[in-house]
Amino acid sequence: MVPTVEWKDGAVRLLDQAQLPERVAFLDCRDYRAVARAIKELRVRGAPAIGVTAAMGVALGAQSIQSTDFDVFSKELLEICHALAATRPTAVNLFWAIERMKQTLAACRQLPVEDIKRRLVEESQRILDEDIAMNKTMGRHGAALVKDGQTILTHCNAGALATAGYGTALGVVRAAWEEGKKIKVLADETRPVLQGARLTAWELMQDGIPVTLITDNMAGALMRQGLVHLCIVGADRIAANGDVANKIGTYSVAVLAKAHHIPFYVAAPYSTIDLSTPSGEQIPIEQRQAEEVTSICGKAVVAPAGVSVLNPAFDVTPAEYITAIITERGVFKPGELAGRFRA
Amino acid sequence: MVPTVEWKDGAVRLLDQAQLPERVAFLDCRDYRAVARAIKELRVRGAPAIGVTAAMGVALGAQSIQSTDFDVFSKELLEICHALAATRPTAVNLFWAIERMKQTLAACRQLPVEDIKRRLVEESQRILDEDIAMNKTMGRHGAALVKDGQTILTHCNAGALATAGYGTALGVVRAAWEEGKKIKVLADETRPVLQGARLTAWELMQDGIPVTLITDNMAGALMRQGLVHLCIVGADRIAANGDVANKIGTYSVAVLAKAHHIPFYVAAPYSTIDLSTPSGEQIPIEQRQAEEVTSICGKAVVAPAGVSVLNPAFDVTPAEYITAIITERGVFKPGELAGRFRA
Repeated sequence: MVPTVEWKDGAVRLLDQAQLPERVAFLDCRDYRAVARAIKELRVRGAPAIGVTAAMGVALGAQSIQSTDFDVFSKELLEICHALAATRPTAVNLFWAIERMKQTLAACRQLPVEDIKRRLVEESQRILDEDIAMNKTMGRHGAALVKDGQTILTHCNAGALATAGYGTALGVVRAAWEEGKKIKVLADETRPVLQGARLTAWELMQDGIPVTLITDNMAGALMRQGLVHLCIVGADRIAANGDVANKIGTYSVAVLAKAHHIPFYVAAPYSTIDLSTPSGEQIPIEQRQAEEVTSICGKAVVAPAGVSVLNPAFDVTPAEYITAIITERGVFKPGELAGRFRA
Repeated sequence: MVPTVEWKDGAVRLLDQAQLPERVAFLDCRDYRAVARAIKELRVRGAPAIGVTAAMGVALGAQSIQSTDFDVFSKELLEICHALAATRPTAVNLFWAIERMKQTLAACRQLPVEDIKRRLVEESQRILDEDIAMNKTMGRHGAALVKDGQTILTHCNAGALATAGYGTALGVVRAAWEEGKKIKVLADETRPVLQGARLTAWELMQDGIPVTLITDNMAGALMRQGLVHLCIVGADRIAANGDVANKIGTYSVAVLAKAHHIPFYVAAPYSTIDLSTPSGEQIPIEQRQAEEVTSICGKAVVAPAGVSVLNPAFDVTPAEYITAIITERGVFKPGELAGRFRA
């Protein structure tokens, strides 16, 4: 797999996911504003990938600060952190990664600014490396839940492209596949931005893992026919009570899975769990522009001009619909989170 | 509203729904093969509209038969009926309308062929006129189930465009609106062919009825938020036990509605009820080409080349998910059909 995001020759290089699957093109961001724009425009997306990218954006922003006075440097860096945090409201990994960069800044306050700049780059690289390692561990934990010959339905893209690499939900798929299990994936296309069609189908085909693309509204009928054995999705934020915010449509899949007695798993790094948010009701849901619904990836207009549209980017799946949450620290019932971990 | 289908200057004139909402264009079919092609290519769609169009296709085909010998004429006409019946497998109104044309042929066997040709055109016009009248009656029956201020979720297009006029599910909406009820419609966009975005949104906007477009995967989240008060959809075939075949995704909407205690209604003319099909399991489900999923209306490619795809055009909603079936003969519980009517 090509890397989703990397630090390359003093720039943040992103795989431009808006151009997939037609073109494999890269976007070199040479200042933090370009990184923020890329996050807003969904050129990089997926909660963990956004976190890593924002951390690298902070490190990149640090390089351009002229002052060698810590207080001035610190003030400017916090403004950069603020700008990057304002790109998207729902995924908590974004805030978590920026917080880690702020902690690095605080821990280095005695060092010369030039050294702090280097430490920030190193920290962002550490976040990236840890993300891949966590996904592989998460994959092993999750693979134990997948049986040979099963078909896994997934929604949106919680794959290598949604992370620094390997993936969360698709990390579980990869780990099961690497263990020799003959599994198949059903990928919801995931309107409006079609991350399932454009990204999940593409990355699984790259790895030779059998994938069949469906429209979102086919999932229920296929469940009824017995063609889905389990569902695995990612998460943008997990509240303390185990409620999960994830791509719009996740809730429908969870309700349908429950109605058909199909296990519904969420795979996400521990950093996605936000113990300071008591329940899904407090998770802010990003509302995006109507054009994502009225046209397809900016190419084809599919609705009458001026039509009223709703476009929530995420929904909340209550804990009661979730069989278990797969993390790098183990597999938990959603109700166990608050007791096991501390805010 | 412009007519969906009409007999015009010796041709069958269709509103070309493949071009909506971008262009209001008409397709003049001058032989029955053009009519069959238009049905296959979804230039006209919706179970009742297909029935009316096929009947007019039979009448059109009749005009071009050279022989004045009844037996030769009859044989050729039955071949035309056969070709039109082979266009799409799921909607039963197609077979019902063709059967009515065959009965007209049989009833006229003593008449000169030229008179039979005229009678066939008259019969197809009668089917069209009856369809509109039935929809208005159905609308009145259904409107009694809709309260002032409610929001109705619909899937696909069961509107004027799916019928000879007025609509089935949207006929109920129109009747409630005409009664002065301040209702709103949420229209599922209905991938892959986007009949909700392209047709339902368009025809409701034409009539000034408030409509908001959503992607199919938003319905569940909106139901959870209490934003949907009832669901009304059309039907392509209703089995004797009350199971309903309708556009893919209907089953998911029905399961979601049940999980949220929201009434789920099916509006369809009596001709959609196929008492010779015992249950939904016996309804043939049309599988359509992968390109409908991998590209959007033939305009934008949205998936990797060569990806495996499933594309069932319909699904079956079991009777247990259906609150009631609204017909021109009244409103029935799905379980009542077989007892009330005879095959």
